Amino acid sequence: MNKLTIGLFGFGCVGQGLHYALEHSTGFRAAIRRICVKHRHKARTLDAAYFCYDKAEILADEQINVIVELIDDADEAYSIVKEAICKGKHVVTANKKMLALHLQELLDLQKQHGVSLLYEASACGSIPIIRSLEEYFDNEELVKVSGIFNGTTNYILTKTIADGITYPEALAQAQAKGFAESDPTSDVEGYDALYKTVIIALHAFGVVLRVEQLFRCGITTLQQEDITYASEKGYKIKLTPTIKRLSGNRLTAYVIPRFVRPTNHLYKVDDEFNGVVVEGTFSGEQFLQGRGAGSLPTGAAVLSDVSALSYGYQYEHKKHHQDTHLDFTNDVLIRIYLRYENEEDIARLAFERITERYTGEKYQYVIGLVHLSTLLAQAEYLRQRHLFIAAMEQ
Amino acid sequence: MNKLTIGLFGFGCVGQGLHYALEHSTGFRAAIRRICVKHRHKARTLDAAYFCYDKAEILADEQINVIVELIDDADEAYSIVKEAICKGKHVVTANKKMLALHLQELLDLQKQHGVSLLYEASACGSIPIIRSLEEYFDNEELVKVSGIFNGTTNYILTKTIADGITYPEALAQAQAKGFAESDPTSDVEGYDALYKTVIIALHAFGVVLRVEQLFRCGITTLQQEDITYASEKGYKIKLTPTIKRLSGNRLTAYVIPRFVRPTNHLYKVDDEFNGVVVEGTFSGEQFLQGRGAGSLPTGAAVLSDVSALSYGYQYEHKKHHQDTHLDFTNDVLIRIYLRYENEEDIARLAFERITERYTGEKYQYVIGLVHLSTLLAQAEYLRQRHLFIAAMEQ
Repeated sequence: MNKLTIGLFGFGCVGQGLHYALEHSTGFRAAIRRICVKHRHKARTLDAAYFCYDKAEILADEQINVIVELIDDADEAYSIVKEAICKGKHVVTANKKMLALHLQELLDLQKQHGVSLLYEASACGSIPIIRSLEEYFDNEELVKVSGIFNGTTNYILTKTIADGITYPEALAQAQAKGFAESDPTSDVEGYDALYKTVIIALHAFGVVLRVEQLFRCGITTLQQEDITYASEKGYKIKLTPTIKRLSGNRLTAYVIPRFVRPTNHLYKVDDEFNGVVVEGTFSGEQFLQGRGAGSLPTGAAVLSDVSALSYGYQYEHKKHHQDTHLDFTNDVLIRIYLRYENEEDIARLAFERITERYTGEKYQYVIGLVHLSTLLAQAEYLRQRHLFIAAMEQ
Repeated sequence: MNKLTIGLFGFGCVGQGLHYALEHSTGFRAAIRRICVKHRHKARTLDAAYFCYDKAEILADEQINVIVELIDDADEAYSIVKEAICKGKHVVTANKKMLALHLQELLDLQKQHGVSLLYEASACGSIPIIRSLEEYFDNEELVKVSGIFNGTTNYILTKTIADGITYPEALAQAQAKGFAESDPTSDVEGYDALYKTVIIALHAFGVVLRVEQLFRCGITTLQQEDITYASEKGYKIKLTPTIKRLSGNRLTAYVIPRFVRPTNHLYKVDDEFNGVVVEGTFSGEQFLQGRGAGSLPTGAAVLSDVSALSYGYQYEHKKHHQDTHLDFTNDVLIRIYLRYENEEDIARLAFERITERYTGEKYQYVIGLVHLSTLLAQAEYLRQRHLFIAAMEQ
């Protein structure tokens, strides 16, 4: 077992969770030597001697062999993680944005410097999804990975359906409860889910996707009519990233709200919980559910990475190094619900086929097949026109 | 990566699944050198040259460095596994009975000979439960692990409620579909679930339990009245092993049918599926679901162990080697439903408190608190009298 001396960046919700988990862990101790924080005058729960305000103090400290990076700022995180790796320190991070934006470079750097970069806490909180993909499903061809990767939007969506409240009301409630940031953009516009999709795609299918390749649609355009429609049909609305293998060694991925039926595993994943469905050629459907947010659950995920380091664990990125190369494509038809305003809206999406059309005094919708590539091209148009779309279950 | 040369024992459902999974695995190849089988004249799907009928031919083969043991007979499996370990070969097994009955000895032997003994496929089919407990929850104090560990009984119980058929009818259906053996005793009497409970308890709580310490109750005494009772109340009946930490570093475990409500994760785990709920102090409730039986799902679990061997993986049995020692106890009150015949039945269970009592012309039941130790003492009585008991949700 390697002796770990930790330099911690960030002492917010997750950082404090990690500290608590380390203190109360059974059978494992690793010492936090220094904690680098931004705000000099904030009240802290630990002795002042722990804290520093200059990242160089930690990065230059040769006794520190593990950097745990838990700050919000993705650019700053990138600079810290990169420097740490180049200095031969192992890194544990929970920063999905930083990872998703620099995945290939970080993979290369880590390999080049022979250190370990672990990030279980970056995706789906306390669900051991990356470890399971990397170590358990490593030799099985996966067909599909989908799920609920973002706790904030799931909390909001749950409340709109369960309590019959509007999206702005539910968002305000989520903010009051600490499940949503004061600027909720990254969550509600689907960026957070997208970053996690990119990370999970690497471990599930071996591909390094670029965020701009993927269609992403959040939940900000959700209106009362859409909630009513879903409720009447017995659906719930979930923001569901999907990564799917297609014929001819192709793969597609996208983030979209979805109407889910009671028979879907994700139907019962409510509030701030996350859920992942992993479909393998041999094992069929596996379903994993756990807490997607919160100080301790995320802190525990970070702890599990730190603990793994003590045994010299590294992701092998096995699928990434396997022979099968999958090409990303948006040349896929998906069946969607579109709440629209005028015929131009429908024309823009160039439906391959419309199977249902409803017009009423309050709202109107169509259901039909569209090309994912068209959705990607029209994403900004949809947002600006406040049109709501949701994928229909097959 | 270590070169693996496999000697396989057994070529039934799981053995053939492993062979298929190995042949169709992405990025991983391990060679099966010999397969030892019992029946000389059975038609085989592989070339006859693969097969042998004397275990010594495989065990003495120095080129074989991995034994995969997938036979039914637990005594024979024990003898094979023991000899293999003593000869310095790594072992992968799916034999829960053999493991549960010899757990401590096998742990010691494995350590003594410095080989790896892996058995992911022994518990809950394609759910990576042992690996997750061992590698992800290793440093977190767990509160409870419960679930549906047996696919056969779950299939039967699902059919009784969903299709309103009797236990014997559902059993016959399960046998016709290949989900139940011609002698279903091990499944329906709860032995299979009990063995898995013992195995999971080791990795979740570090304890080596003896099967005879645990109260075990299967589903063979289930009658139409119990099914009606459950249906009317909106419950489903599930055979649910439970392992639970108690105050004062104590732990209890038992296997019992349970009435579960729709809010329970296990409610939706139907047919031959398994589900596990892992409750941690930090991470809260995690829920994992997957296929509990079948050639390919179980074969894939075996494959994941074989693949892990190629990276030199061993269970560290981390919780077992941690300081906290948990004492097993049956000194616990649980709330049960008892369908009884006469007052003697009730007297035998020495209820601490009876909270409900129903008497009708067709059947009668009481609901109340009993000591687990009393249930253990009266287990045989309950079976012989065909009384049905089920735990009530708290």
